[in-house]
Amino acid sequence: MNTKEVLSLFQSDIVAINLGLPGFAENLVGFGADVVNVDWQPPAGGNLAALKALERLEKSARVDIEAANAEAVRRILAAEPMVIGIGKALDTVPGMAKDLVLHSGPPISWDKMCGPMKGAVIGGLIYEGLAANAKEAEELAASEKIRFDPCHHHNAVGPMAGVMTASMPVWIVENKAFGNMAYCTLNEGLGKVLRYGAYSDEVIERLKWIEKELAPILSKALELHGPMDMKSIIAQILQMGDEGHNRNRAGTSIIIRELAPHLVMLDYPKEKLSRALAFLNANDHFFLNLSMPSAKCSVDAAAGIEGSTIITTMARNGVEFGIKLSGLSGQWFTGPSGVVDGLYLPGFGPKDAARDIGDSVITETAGFGGFAMAAAPAIVKFVGGSPEDAIAVTENMYAITNAESEAYRIPVLDFRGTPSGIDVRKVVETGILPAINTGIAHKEPGIGMVGAGLVKPPENAFRDALIAFAEKYV
Amino acid sequence: MNTKEVLSLFQSDIVAINLGLPGFAENLVGFGADVVNVDWQPPAGGNLAALKALERLEKSARVDIEAANAEAVRRILAAEPMVIGIGKALDTVPGMAKDLVLHSGPPISWDKMCGPMKGAVIGGLIYEGLAANAKEAEELAASEKIRFDPCHHHNAVGPMAGVMTASMPVWIVENKAFGNMAYCTLNEGLGKVLRYGAYSDEVIERLKWIEKELAPILSKALELHGPMDMKSIIAQILQMGDEGHNRNRAGTSIIIRELAPHLVMLDYPKEKLSRALAFLNANDHFFLNLSMPSAKCSVDAAAGIEGSTIITTMARNGVEFGIKLSGLSGQWFTGPSGVVDGLYLPGFGPKDAARDIGDSVITETAGFGGFAMAAAPAIVKFVGGSPEDAIAVTENMYAITNAESEAYRIPVLDFRGTPSGIDVRKVVETGILPAINTGIAHKEPGIGMVGAGLVKPPENAFRDALIAFAEKYV
Repeated sequence: MNTKEVLSLFQSDIVAINLGLPGFAENLVGFGADVVNVDWQPPAGGNLAALKALERLEKSARVDIEAANAEAVRRILAAEPMVIGIGKALDTVPGMAKDLVLHSGPPISWDKMCGPMKGAVIGGLIYEGLAANAKEAEELAASEKIRFDPCHHHNAVGPMAGVMTASMPVWIVENKAFGNMAYCTLNEGLGKVLRYGAYSDEVIERLKWIEKELAPILSKALELHGPMDMKSIIAQILQMGDEGHNRNRAGTSIIIRELAPHLVMLDYPKEKLSRALAFLNANDHFFLNLSMPSAKCSVDAAAGIEGSTIITTMARNGVEFGIKLSGLSGQWFTGPSGVVDGLYLPGFGPKDAARDIGDSVITETAGFGGFAMAAAPAIVKFVGGSPEDAIAVTENMYAITNAESEAYRIPVLDFRGTPSGIDVRKVVETGILPAINTGIAHKEPGIGMVGAGLVKPPENAFRDALIAFAEKYV
Repeated sequence: MNTKEVLSLFQSDIVAINLGLPGFAENLVGFGADVVNVDWQPPAGGNLAALKALERLEKSARVDIEAANAEAVRRILAAEPMVIGIGKALDTVPGMAKDLVLHSGPPISWDKMCGPMKGAVIGGLIYEGLAANAKEAEELAASEKIRFDPCHHHNAVGPMAGVMTASMPVWIVENKAFGNMAYCTLNEGLGKVLRYGAYSDEVIERLKWIEKELAPILSKALELHGPMDMKSIIAQILQMGDEGHNRNRAGTSIIIRELAPHLVMLDYPKEKLSRALAFLNANDHFFLNLSMPSAKCSVDAAAGIEGSTIITTMARNGVEFGIKLSGLSGQWFTGPSGVVDGLYLPGFGPKDAARDIGDSVITETAGFGGFAMAAAPAIVKFVGGSPEDAIAVTENMYAITNAESEAYRIPVLDFRGTPSGIDVRKVVETGILPAINTGIAHKEPGIGMVGAGLVKPPENAFRDALIAFAEKYV
């Protein structure tokens, strides 16, 4: 049939409303019809098990999800992260041991680890003096003599590979409102660094300098300064073009200006003090390892609330992306780590990239980082896209969160609070996935950073969590 | 006549286009007419002398204004302000003398000065040891023994009252691209400070400490650091929520983090180094006195170009607002200083306010400050309005400028360059006045800051400049 013959079947002109795939509309337009195209998707992407779970939860009288979520969100917004000190991981982090290596993301065994995580483990074992070189380290890592555990199982977080070993100094951040703690190593800078899987002598030496010189200096300066109010500082950096995940220039600046007047008072050779300040000035990501434990102790206070569908953990190990729900404490729900879409350093491209990795997505979980991209339009020079995209990213996140932060506000959105408290029901129902911006590590061990960009978490992790939640509660 | 009778005069329904005042349209609408209202204003606000000047300039073949302005704008955009040192005003600022007091804005005599400028002069004379108290200082100021001159006549700029005396330390900023210099005192902080007209013991003691301790420390730290590239730093702060006039938190942070590693190397008692760093950390406007001379030496390079209608100076002394054109070097065109519309500190209100004062509007003249407000949406918490207003302010300024900065870019406007090079013809023709944000001083001497806000410069200064320009060139 040609167009004329098709149209002759109708008494009047065709006026159609097309839901979903624009392809169907194109056919109708081809027949001369007047078509309104509605960008519609079935809830939960049409996944039957997920739809059933959503329906059962909505109808159930057995669990008061709204009340549970209100409490979870209240706790997230009421968090008061304070940097109270620096300690040695072995003496500070619960359950830390000399034969234990912590890593980012959900649990993973040595044989399954991606390149940059293996590289960081190799570096960590050499740094601890447990191996003399990469070969020895790999053998040791593959043996029974070394145990692995996620940072998240020890109240800790680690960017990228997230490797923490016993001798490493760690920031101690206390959630003053609830008394719980979080820990994170000190940031090493960009380029060839352990967290991106590099383990050359230069990397190990820098880690040793951080342990022996930088950490004691900062620890003593912080002692003179007193606890550092991270809630206030994160609120400030959102007025200064940072979002606290991949843009940390303002945050690092504030840490320097707050500590410097106390740091100069220390009884150290001035060359050492100068080197410490110069290192901080040269490393705009220094703040990341403070924003991450601040986020971690903020959301941890909301974990373990019976009946809550709020996401309290998101983390990736380079192979899997995992989440935890407040109401399903202890359980990870995982899917494959995504491929990062972003900008590459000169000489590198997508073929070099490891998959999405690191605990830094704890910032998004707590309502800043990618969720606050609208506050940091200049970040697009680092992760790609346009300033409009950055604003749209934040605006989208209001659809999957239950609250707006009172402390963290975005000037360009007329000081609207950042979207906070991700509700797994909303993620599944809308199909809108949490926005994450991230660094990109080289896929091979030993190389380091190759770029930065945006990444989508796997849908199935959210769906599986929802279904498990419905099974437990209904 | 009633509506019906009026309408009966016409053969068909009335359809009208109303230009300008909406009041006329309302009458027609009252008669049942269909009215389109066009927000139209006659060029130059209908001022005949100004219209004539614009017309004569457009028709004249005697002067190539476009070429002259292109050169002026080229020089403004090519400026490379570098902070190269700190000197004593007497030894550094051209023409400075012990009996000379420099002030902000166009020339003014003691008897005509506003309250805060009188207060700052009193403080300056006490600070110099030329008077023991306010009474003595007032007598001396009114005598022939003291001379007054605008900062602008000595390659200098000063915020608010802008008082500079012989012993004061000054920042030395060189425009590396053209070799010209600019000078400015060191910022004293907010509240009770000389530039806002306060002169209590606390104010004088702080000025002495700045002279004896802070300036030498910063001078030596800067020497170790090397010249500070202000073009790069101003470009950065526009990505960090500052606009370099009334929001300077990022700028001050960058100065601290750049200087701190060198400052700790100095052979000073550590208490003094700590006090210097603590003072900078407590004073977010410290950067203003660096951004101002950077702007000054940038636009000064564009002064004195025959045939150019680009504005190279705007400045206020609290009584008069004055401008200078590149093509009419040396001549001030003035009008009454405006009343600032803004936010007040607790306990103060519009009745306490002095009129618009200070050389800080040099930042707008150079294409940042108020002209870059879109980069600093959080500034509205200080000067009033909404973030949308801040964006609109910048967008408006493209209508009266001839270029967009290559170095200074605004993320939220998709990294568009800031509006730069104000053309007095465009100001007069459109009636759009340069946007200025500013602090508010108390109108009485001796009190200090009471608020901050936005202010309109007087239209007639721009009109008079244009008419004088036409007289000279056509």
